[in-house]
Amino acid sequence: MVRSLLVVGTGLIGTSVALAARRAGVEVFLADRDAATARVAESLGAGRAETPRHPVDLALVAVPPTQVGLVLREAQQRRAARSYTDVAGVKGEPGRDVLRLAPDPAAYVGGHPMAGRERSGPLAATADLFTGRTWVLTPSERTGAAALRSATTLAELCGATPVCLDSRAHDAMVALTSHVPHLMAGLTAARLREGPAGTEKLVGEGVRDVTRVAAGDPALWTDIVRSNAAPIAAVLRAVHDDLTRLLAAVEALAATGPDGHEQAVHDIAALLEQGAAGAARARPPGDRIRLRVTVGPQPGALAALLPATPQAVVAATANPDGTLAVHLDVPAATAGAAAAELRAAGWDVAVDEGAAVCRVAAGR
Amino acid sequence: MVRSLLVVGTGLIGTSVALAARRAGVEVFLADRDAATARVAESLGAGRAETPRHPVDLALVAVPPTQVGLVLREAQQRRAARSYTDVAGVKGEPGRDVLRLAPDPAAYVGGHPMAGRERSGPLAATADLFTGRTWVLTPSERTGAAALRSATTLAELCGATPVCLDSRAHDAMVALTSHVPHLMAGLTAARLREGPAGTEKLVGEGVRDVTRVAAGDPALWTDIVRSNAAPIAAVLRAVHDDLTRLLAAVEALAATGPDGHEQAVHDIAALLEQGAAGAARARPPGDRIRLRVTVGPQPGALAALLPATPQAVVAATANPDGTLAVHLDVPAATAGAAAAELRAAGWDVAVDEGAAVCRVAAGR
Repeated sequence: MVRSLLVVGTGLIGTSVALAARRAGVEVFLADRDAATARVAESLGAGRAETPRHPVDLALVAVPPTQVGLVLREAQQRRAARSYTDVAGVKGEPGRDVLRLAPDPAAYVGGHPMAGRERSGPLAATADLFTGRTWVLTPSERTGAAALRSATTLAELCGATPVCLDSRAHDAMVALTSHVPHLMAGLTAARLREGPAGTEKLVGEGVRDVTRVAAGDPALWTDIVRSNAAPIAAVLRAVHDDLTRLLAAVEALAATGPDGHEQAVHDIAALLEQGAAGAARARPPGDRIRLRVTVGPQPGALAALLPATPQAVVAATANPDGTLAVHLDVPAATAGAAAAELRAAGWDVAVDEGAAVCRVAAGR
Repeated sequence: MVRSLLVVGTGLIGTSVALAARRAGVEVFLADRDAATARVAESLGAGRAETPRHPVDLALVAVPPTQVGLVLREAQQRRAARSYTDVAGVKGEPGRDVLRLAPDPAAYVGGHPMAGRERSGPLAATADLFTGRTWVLTPSERTGAAALRSATTLAELCGATPVCLDSRAHDAMVALTSHVPHLMAGLTAARLREGPAGTEKLVGEGVRDVTRVAAGDPALWTDIVRSNAAPIAAVLRAVHDDLTRLLAAVEALAATGPDGHEQAVHDIAALLEQGAAGAARARPPGDRIRLRVTVGPQPGALAALLPATPQAVVAATANPDGTLAVHLDVPAATAGAAAAELRAAGWDVAVDEGAAVCRVAAGR
């Protein structure tokens, strides 16, 4: 049970956890080295900016990675809680700091809720920040059962899915899925400073997406990079190699004369194809099923189908008889209902179930 | 007037323009070297997949940049239209191809609607794709008034804002705002292929944003990079320099021993700060005005204000009397109404008008 929670550090993540815990009926105490920040969190309804009189069930240390060990030592020295966890985006170094500094490492388990925003501070906080997200926990050999249980409970009452990982595996993965993407967004955004007046008019959704995270707090991100330097360096070296090859290819195309153009085009296409393959891995998961609808030859016929199938159409091919075969990609869970609905509306629908196609004729 | 339009190339952009033109009552003809693709566009209600019997008012060449000159020459040779434009994301090389190849360069003006999606093909098309977007036109010294007028009309009836630019300036800007961001997204996404099983669980909105555009068609993007190689190379060289410095800094931090750590942290922070500054430039524009609301000292007081001001709160500071000064960032156009509404609800609101603060007391 987590009936009482102390949040140390009322930034975006700490305050969001506090709001979610309050919503679940937990008694929440708030602390921040900047008293005004804790006051703002309190004013948001995240809890009380007071020191608890008795040890709470769980203390959440929500400070930058390089501060976790020191803040945890201080909290354990004054017996602030029965169990302790943190939210740092890096787990190896803070974990080693805790083992080195904290009086009671068994009462601590590392944590990393996989959620964030480009805005920081308590005013950006929301109780829903963790809903549906992964919340990584990194128990060490020293971690006791009570600490793991309390941290798991907190993750669940925030609406997240707790996932246990070795801290080294976690750090290698987030270098790939978070830290290097952040640095790449920063490198891309940095160049925008140099555009002439009017460059803003040529900014579209694409570059806005690529650079959005770069607006995050540079001081916090410097701390993250510092705490996870080795795994980040390994990924960045591979990116640097790719960029060196890409730059050489683009320079070959920019040079007058066709020397090396064929190889350059090949290299650029290969890198873009690798990017497309990787981007597919970043897409939200979900089992999908293909439906195939036959659409008549009259102009506008497909337009009549689309309102019934928002966002689902992925391909259309012409049949020899002048009709179109339209392929719909729908969630497996609702594929049956979607097919039935389309048939009821008069469409000719087939469901691709693996290799077998179970064709159902309809009247349209 | 544009009463009739021929769209050559019924991919995402061509079909979207066709749908918007149909909605505006224009007679639209569709052509594609792949007849089935034109049929799909026709079935979507984008026009008729037929060759017009008489010259149309405007022909839109919606093919990859390296094909524009050839396709335009063919269309002009058979007198398909009175005026011609294109949609290629690069303008210098296609423009030179047109001057070199086309029988009537005066009837052509280059165009580039600043809109796209990560999905391609006619099935991703929508009549609203260009609403509120910039549509760049790049008239040359040879461009005649009729062609410029027709292309301007087409942009406007698609809901876009036409902006005239020199083709060289356009190409330098899009290298910065579109092509290099795309390549950086690809380089970042490419690394995701290497993550161990379970990496997907650690994918959040951040990396999804950074890598989203990398899902775009590698063949089309190879063609774009090829057509704008020199401006892209110039930006990529600067990115490569930054990445080389960043990698050296991260490697210094990853090495055992504190040598060079201070300089490394300084370098990383500087790059991240440049990124944050650049990201600000990618944000949508809009005049904003600051409101300041005074919030009482009781816990949860700020939570009562927030529902009245979605997304607007940017900062809060503690006043010596225990109240909070909450700063709201609201669109200038609606700032007066927002302030009046807050006052009507009993809040103490001040409007920051430049340096002068016009304070209004209220009853709460």
